[in-house]
Amino acid sequence: MDKRLTLAVVMFEEFELLDVFGPLEMFGLLPERFEIFLVAESGDIVTSAQGPKSVIDYRFSDCPSFDILLVPGGRGTRREVENPVLLDWLQSQAQESQYTTSVCTGSALLARAGLLDGRRATTNKAAFQWVASQGKNVDWQKQARWVEDDRFLTSSGVSAGLDMSLALIAHIEGKETAEQVATWAEYEWHRDPNWDPFAVSYGLV
Amino acid sequence: MDKRLTLAVVMFEEFELLDVFGPLEMFGLLPERFEIFLVAESGDIVTSAQGPKSVIDYRFSDCPSFDILLVPGGRGTRREVENPVLLDWLQSQAQESQYTTSVCTGSALLARAGLLDGRRATTNKAAFQWVASQGKNVDWQKQARWVEDDRFLTSSGVSAGLDMSLALIAHIEGKETAEQVATWAEYEWHRDPNWDPFAVSYGLV
Repeated sequence: MDKRLTLAVVMFEEFELLDVFGPLEMFGLLPERFEIFLVAESGDIVTSAQGPKSVIDYRFSDCPSFDILLVPGGRGTRREVENPVLLDWLQSQAQESQYTTSVCTGSALLARAGLLDGRRATTNKAAFQWVASQGKNVDWQKQARWVEDDRFLTSSGVSAGLDMSLALIAHIEGKETAEQVATWAEYEWHRDPNWDPFAVSYGLV
Repeated sequence: MDKRLTLAVVMFEEFELLDVFGPLEMFGLLPERFEIFLVAESGDIVTSAQGPKSVIDYRFSDCPSFDILLVPGGRGTRREVENPVLLDWLQSQAQESQYTTSVCTGSALLARAGLLDGRRATTNKAAFQWVASQGKNVDWQKQARWVEDDRFLTSSGVSAGLDMSLALIAHIEGKETAEQVATWAEYEWHRDPNWDPFAVSYGLV
């Protein structure tokens, strides 16, 4: 019996490259524990905001439920917040998942799906006001590398997804394993969820 | 006239995700200055070491020369060091490029192509001995986040590609632009090429 946790990334046109592949590097370094899938509404290929294209493993219509959901940001979120098919899919998948996570403006999609109502969450600092306007009942945190609220983990912009992923790996597999993953990737992990100099750079605090 | 610099990533089966998409996030944030292509020996799709698949833009047989080459690492380099087609392509492309760069064990491929002979270079710290054995005439640096030698920039493991990319952006576009890119990506850029705690973690120094 496969005891791996399944992790699905919700892909859409103009996703942000590092929002997706930063976390997948970290989870992917533990292939005996995490199985990775890219899921999209339709089609076989999705194009990133930066140009490179990825191949999709599952469509919304033919996929199982997953243990971990990861919602990236990128320009495409400005369009997808108005996409009821994606928002409905997120809502129903999140009910089945053990953890629902976002990077950057991905939290705008979780907010519009109503999944963050009454919860603490954060997002990209450059787009903070826009994302916050997508969820009036969310307790948006201006200064945070990532925020954990029950089984929802939302992270700040782009590279913050690396730190959130390591925090989730530490939660599931233990801190020592997360440290090992960071060392393999030669990544200086920011272990403090309150570390966020970019909230200052963008004048939010 | 398009004044953008072209950047080609050399793709092969079992490439390391973040080695490719970390740098492409950084260069991709300046789309008016850098145009990104994924190039492989053959085929349309390449599978990463972590599972996700990417779509190829050019094959070796039908591609132009590029201004910047980026050679990622990953498990696949253990096979590709014995691939004369890839090594020949690298050798001829590097003659035309303005900058030839590598992340992680990608420097093993540059070394086997003879491109680093007599030069200073670095690589992944976990695989240091194996990479060093691929280039006996290379002055391998055990402790370095990245190494610049003329138009060759080689970086240390996985996430070190982010720092090297920002350094190259600073060289081409100016330090202020590189700082802006790092802030957009909410990335804490390691500006010092000699910063390398991982050489200590792996007992190299």
